[in-house]
Amino acid sequence: MTASPIAHGRTIVPDRAPNQPTHAGDEHTLPAALARALPGRFIVFEGPDGSGKSTQLRRFVGACNASGVRPVEVREPGGTEVGERIRRALLDHLEREEMTLRCEMLLYMASRAQLCERVIAPAVARGELVVADRFVSSTMAYQGAAGGLPLDEIEAAAGIATRGVSPDAVVIFDVDEQTAAQRMNPLLRGDSLDRMEAKGLAFHRKVRAGYLEQVERFPSTHLRIDASAAEDDVWHSFVHTLTAHLTKNA
Amino acid sequence: MTASPIAHGRTIVPDRAPNQPTHAGDEHTLPAALARALPGRFIVFEGPDGSGKSTQLRRFVGACNASGVRPVEVREPGGTEVGERIRRALLDHLEREEMTLRCEMLLYMASRAQLCERVIAPAVARGELVVADRFVSSTMAYQGAAGGLPLDEIEAAAGIATRGVSPDAVVIFDVDEQTAAQRMNPLLRGDSLDRMEAKGLAFHRKVRAGYLEQVERFPSTHLRIDASAAEDDVWHSFVHTLTAHLTKNA
Repeated sequence: MTASPIAHGRTIVPDRAPNQPTHAGDEHTLPAALARALPGRFIVFEGPDGSGKSTQLRRFVGACNASGVRPVEVREPGGTEVGERIRRALLDHLEREEMTLRCEMLLYMASRAQLCERVIAPAVARGELVVADRFVSSTMAYQGAAGGLPLDEIEAAAGIATRGVSPDAVVIFDVDEQTAAQRMNPLLRGDSLDRMEAKGLAFHRKVRAGYLEQVERFPSTHLRIDASAAEDDVWHSFVHTLTAHLTKNA
Repeated sequence: MTASPIAHGRTIVPDRAPNQPTHAGDEHTLPAALARALPGRFIVFEGPDGSGKSTQLRRFVGACNASGVRPVEVREPGGTEVGERIRRALLDHLEREEMTLRCEMLLYMASRAQLCERVIAPAVARGELVVADRFVSSTMAYQGAAGGLPLDEIEAAAGIATRGVSPDAVVIFDVDEQTAAQRMNPLLRGDSLDRMEAKGLAFHRKVRAGYLEQVERFPSTHLRIDASAAEDDVWHSFVHTLTAHLTKNA
């Protein structure tokens, strides 16, 4: 059985894209207190499909650039040449459903080990802001809570793979299954029905529960954002929550 | 840094090859006590390059077939479709030395997870003999003792990947670096100098020490065979030691 957040191929974010294409979020800048708190941080965007996570991430990257903070963007799995190779192996085999859940989880961790050592840790050490589209929390939610792999196995493997690289904030865009399904509805959005959607509402509920459980377990890093509202409202809630979190810790 | 036993591409053993090509070992059969003890066992062949491990493995498989015990052969990494894909990713990137040691180790473990769940555990459960060319001990010797990765990290990852699949015997073909180097000398053997050889005697010494440390730590499963002697002598020593081990445990 497989339980992957990447099978739909929507979370594609370039490895590094200092010059973002123009989009609706570019005119926004960040509160000065937030912009000051960002250098040297590692921030992870998480959430189920249909949560708007990737939209908010692009908006955040645009606002960072507009505020003079140039983030290093990474995607999971991938983000390095080795990771892209692993990503392709994952995608191929997940589509054919022939990969065991433990193999899948360890492949994510292998890609993550390369990403942490070669990209994230050096960038944070240089004082840069690193923004990730998914990280360990996705493995916990998808392969763990939804897939059934014991969380302690995932946490042990993550400890080996990340070797001390841990996010300053894990922002979880939380959305109920009905809203997510509406957002991902192919009739409304023109997307083809993908495997992740086909797993249906029950799967979404397990993933969501997995995320919410993490918010409870790790309150000092994991921030829940209500992502069921309109994009602008979610954005303001996100900026407000992240600012409070990072300036409180500073 | 990379420290892989596969970079030279010599440990290629077919996934399953019930009909072995004829070779010098085929005429040998096994002692009846050993043949009776083999069904349902999982036996791993280990040793540094130049130890004669693969030669002895082929001879053992031939003797098993001649004795009516048809082994399931697996190779590491690989042995499944997913594993072969991981193997190719490893080989490519190891040749370019761009993979981190932790990424490499986790890729071996991912391949191993697939192999354990899909091939080894079911075969052993069916009462078949499974013979592996390398397993966790190689990771301990190459990425651990020689590469420098902490052994407790490797053991933790192995525990997750193998999920209780553990060998009945890990046969370690032990050879000093001079004998191994002579066996692998391209002037004598016609092989081209490969990366593993280029790492030289110092690397071999670390790998060997890693194996011998395992023999000390795990005396109930890890069997040291003096592999510096001639092929026939090593074979007899191996058969004698394995028979004593498996019939003692029976």
